Amino acid sequence: MVEDKPIEVAASGDSVKKPSKKDLKKAEKESKKAEKRASNAAVKLEVVEDDVSAGKYGVLPLIRSTSNFPQRAFTNVKDLNKRLAGKNVWVRARLHTVRGRGKQCFVVLRQKEFTVQAIINVSNTVSKAMVKFASSISKESILDVEATVTEVPSAVAGCSQQDVELVTSQLWIVSSSLPQLPLLIEDASRPEKNDDAESLSIRVNQDTRLDNRILDLRTPANQAIFRIEAGVCRLFREILTEHGFTEIHTPKIISAASEGGANVFTVSYFKGNAYLAQSPQLYKQMAIAADFEKVFTVGAVFRAEDSNTHRHLTEFTGLDLEMAFKYHYHEVMLFIGNVLTGIFKGLRDQFATEIGMVGQQYGMEPFTFLEPPLVLKYAEGRAMLAEAGVEIGPEEDLNTPAEKLLGRIVKAKYDTDFYILDKYPLAVRPFYTMPDPEDPITSNSYDMFMRGEEILSGAQRIHDPELLTERAKHHGIDLSKIASYIDSFKYGCPPHAGGGIGLERVVMLYLGLDNIRKTAMFPRDPKRLTP
Amino acid sequence: MVEDKPIEVAASGDSVKKPSKKDLKKAEKESKKAEKRASNAAVKLEVVEDDVSAGKYGVLPLIRSTSNFPQRAFTNVKDLNKRLAGKNVWVRARLHTVRGRGKQCFVVLRQKEFTVQAIINVSNTVSKAMVKFASSISKESILDVEATVTEVPSAVAGCSQQDVELVTSQLWIVSSSLPQLPLLIEDASRPEKNDDAESLSIRVNQDTRLDNRILDLRTPANQAIFRIEAGVCRLFREILTEHGFTEIHTPKIISAASEGGANVFTVSYFKGNAYLAQSPQLYKQMAIAADFEKVFTVGAVFRAEDSNTHRHLTEFTGLDLEMAFKYHYHEVMLFIGNVLTGIFKGLRDQFATEIGMVGQQYGMEPFTFLEPPLVLKYAEGRAMLAEAGVEIGPEEDLNTPAEKLLGRIVKAKYDTDFYILDKYPLAVRPFYTMPDPEDPITSNSYDMFMRGEEILSGAQRIHDPELLTERAKHHGIDLSKIASYIDSFKYGCPPHAGGGIGLERVVMLYLGLDNIRKTAMFPRDPKRLTP
Repeated sequence: MVEDKPIEVAASGDSVKKPSKKDLKKAEKESKKAEKRASNAAVKLEVVEDDVSAGKYGVLPLIRSTSNFPQRAFTNVKDLNKRLAGKNVWVRARLHTVRGRGKQCFVVLRQKEFTVQAIINVSNTVSKAMVKFASSISKESILDVEATVTEVPSAVAGCSQQDVELVTSQLWIVSSSLPQLPLLIEDASRPEKNDDAESLSIRVNQDTRLDNRILDLRTPANQAIFRIEAGVCRLFREILTEHGFTEIHTPKIISAASEGGANVFTVSYFKGNAYLAQSPQLYKQMAIAADFEKVFTVGAVFRAEDSNTHRHLTEFTGLDLEMAFKYHYHEVMLFIGNVLTGIFKGLRDQFATEIGMVGQQYGMEPFTFLEPPLVLKYAEGRAMLAEAGVEIGPEEDLNTPAEKLLGRIVKAKYDTDFYILDKYPLAVRPFYTMPDPEDPITSNSYDMFMRGEEILSGAQRIHDPELLTERAKHHGIDLSKIASYIDSFKYGCPPHAGGGIGLERVVMLYLGLDNIRKTAMFPRDPKRLTP
Repeated sequence: MVEDKPIEVAASGDSVKKPSKKDLKKAEKESKKAEKRASNAAVKLEVVEDDVSAGKYGVLPLIRSTSNFPQRAFTNVKDLNKRLAGKNVWVRARLHTVRGRGKQCFVVLRQKEFTVQAIINVSNTVSKAMVKFASSISKESILDVEATVTEVPSAVAGCSQQDVELVTSQLWIVSSSLPQLPLLIEDASRPEKNDDAESLSIRVNQDTRLDNRILDLRTPANQAIFRIEAGVCRLFREILTEHGFTEIHTPKIISAASEGGANVFTVSYFKGNAYLAQSPQLYKQMAIAADFEKVFTVGAVFRAEDSNTHRHLTEFTGLDLEMAFKYHYHEVMLFIGNVLTGIFKGLRDQFATEIGMVGQQYGMEPFTFLEPPLVLKYAEGRAMLAEAGVEIGPEEDLNTPAEKLLGRIVKAKYDTDFYILDKYPLAVRPFYTMPDPEDPITSNSYDMFMRGEEILSGAQRIHDPELLTERAKHHGIDLSKIASYIDSFKYGCPPHAGGGIGLERVVMLYLGLDNIRKTAMFPRDPKRLTP
């Protein structure tokens, strides 16, 4: 470490303040500890006499923001291509794979989904000791590499950057990984095709992935999934903001289990109890009563359901909206349909690369949709199911298999993976759903489906306190617990409707994934609270 | 209700499906109930013989999305001006105030912050009964009004639309308010100037406001505050997205009280216990360890502090970000400073109207800031305080009065309401804060202030599992509870720093408001869980 002295640990003479004797002693102790840590690292630096590479490789002291650091521009792996051939670059990236072969060491460096090959060859400037050092670095360690970008005669197989490799002149460990990894990124990234015997045998199972989520998340498919998820949120908000919606934040801690009381988590709240909101339902309606006219909110919602299925979480992200209308809730329903279509178009146009990355690992049929979206009446859906031999009563809800079957029928008939089912039976909807004035067994409510699974539930809400009270009574709800909700409609409220979308479900179904745990960064279910 | 038959309730002959006898009976019952509700409303419709206005006013049946409704375009109150003079319009708005004077009735209609005067005069098309009906409508009821836009010779005092009034031809109640309001919007909107005896005497107190939040939120200042709050969120996300950040969602339910254990809410989680996250700290760092490089998250955070102050809530909205850096945490700190400056500029440029609306009620000094933001060392801040006679020890935190005093000193010296205080004592920061390698009593941490109050706390985090373990032990933290956190750094992690911003505080302090409950739509404190 002579020429380009990279980072120094503490207690150097040029520190800004004059530290006291005691301070210096403390600092010295810290410094020694840091050195000990470095030497304890997975990689041991052998001292070799007359090492031509001395000062060109090794373990950097922990980066702690000292005042003297090199002025150095780093190049991103994704930008390494033959236009940079001949140029000297610094790259900070993970060691993805390493193969030492006597006087040569081949390293693949990874930065997010991008990979590039680096070679360390014994030469008159690169010592055997340096090659040996490189060969012994643990996978997943973060390295600073100085290298010359060199064009290669034939494409580098298995790397995203195929037309160049890095001929390495310096190699420093910024952050070491333990040598034993609980899962290999290569394995966790392997395509999951059922006909591929090798990939089947070394597939990393879901729990291993989730137990080691920070490693699992480093795969290209996972990098892509969560960029797409961020995209869904952004598109949802952008479209609504464009249409005059105001974003609000609703409390998660509530005083009463207002939506019927079942499946609600209890919180100790100072000397009493409170509950975790199952949805922002009541609060977004109160915002409508408070003249915000069109509101949306993105936030955590909680369900204390002991369901261990592929599509239930105990905590998920709700994309909720609520909107006043003039005469008919279809003003809102059709608007929401267009919001979803807008999101699908945005994903298709802005996230083609990411969708491709997910497809490479998991495969999937591209997501299809119509513009404007298909709207079916619940009764029509029932008729289509009956034709396929599945009878659903007029006041009965669709169960999951029926939903999926209907999705397949709709897809075959209309070639769309997205549709709206309107006019659900009143009996299967929450108490605050507006009954249909023209057909007493139905209600002004709708669900929306992606690939045959429900992603949104919505309705016209009752904005009249007397009818609301009547319906709450009919549902056996304790009126004293929803007093402040009912009171919200006593001082004039416009007719309104809305809906709630489960973010993780939208992403799962858009991408054709098989489990909602793949689209929650740190999923929560009845059995999983960590990490 | 003859000519322009507006809305009909259920069970009319032209319903789409052929309902059964039983259905019809049920529907009839519903319909009768609805009529009863209408006649129970605050306003009684007197039957007057030979009423020339018959069918031009009354109480509409509850809007329940029947299939026959008028095709009618509505005009927004804010768009009513003399360019529309002579035009016939329909307006749906609240009755803000009403004054009947014999053969005339003056009504002010309100839509969000916009108001317009409507007059109902006895004439050959407007009956005495209609004027009487208008005079008796409760404030805050929602009305459909048909009228001719009419230019007025002198400005209408007290209305936002000053150059026109509405000469009314039809008047229907869409949604009635109870006649007794727990607070008047006029009172709740009154300017709060200390020298104004009248406004002092009828000021609506905070608890009355919060108990009746849906009314309180209808004031122009509140409409503006929550549009500004949505703006802060939007600007925060836009700036970060532009800079390559990925939005993530972190769990609120966590398995261990990871940040020290105090002030955490306990949740019953199936057969065990869990906790509500005090911040997304650990998860956003795990996202960095998982190669997301730059992340942000907007969501609820929970503090079980029994603090009943003007600036504490038990639940608030955190704007959190975390970012990998190359050599020095100032790369991140200065970036965050610029994010905040970007937000201030965005508010100034895009929300001038809303800022004005808040100012009209609460008054305030405009918010000042520098570009780039002022950065002071903690030691410099201490020195400035010492000069003002307030001694703070080198390892001591600033208390609230000291923070406020320092804010005033800084404002006087630099003319900025925003500044960054860098290099806090190590002793007063959380265990995961990186110690300063060049000065053992300080740390690589910073707070940011608006008008002398802290709005952001941030730091370089320890990305080395051994140093992190050491520091956790030093803080007496149960290592078994933070195992999955510490493990996150065992497989290589880049140096990183970040910070967390309290949304409600930013809005409160930007607007110079005196209480954080003014910037939380439905605030939660140790004593308030409703509405």
